[in-house]
Amino acid sequence: MLKVNVYVTLKKEILDAQGLVIRKAIKQIGYENVNEVRFGKFIQLEIDDKNKSEEEIKKEIDYLSDKLLSNPNIENYRFEMVGK
Amino acid sequence: MLKVNVYVTLKKEILDAQGLVIRKAIKQIGYENVNEVRFGKFIQLEIDDKNKSEEEIKKEIDYLSDKLLSNPNIENYRFEMVGK
Repeated sequence: MLKVNVYVTLKKEILDAQGLVIRKAIKQIGYENVNEVRFGKFIQLEIDDKNKSEEEIKKEIDYLSDKLLSNPNIENYRFEMVGK
Repeated sequence: MLKVNVYVTLKKEILDAQGLVIRKAIKQIGYENVNEVRFGKFIQLEIDDKNKSEEEIKKEIDYLSDKLLSNPNIENYRFEMVGK
């Protein structure tokens, strides 16, 4: 069983409303030194990689990240395999 | 300026409804080998660390993660400093 972490983040040019709200809240409780907050998704997958090459698995995660886990119009993703 | 990544995940014993929906969707498009999906948050902070020790910054991130970025009743968090 392969563990994979997928990180989905809003593209730089997209306004991050959730991040702005959190930054405001952080400032309100007195932390003036937090200048930017970007809010994203962190998805952990457990994949059965039996009988599949690393190449095939990577292709599969790429496909899933693009089609299901992110919205390519406004988000970027990256993933890393973190072990068995 | 210090960059910090905070990862917020549901505790193991908490039902992850979002993760289950995604897993179902993944199976529906034909990927039977994805056995678990856990859905979490990925928050990127930019912190002005001038005049602060690493110790102080860590305490600050700990506090913010506990009070604002996560719900300690149902979520865990971890963070890492990823550079300047």
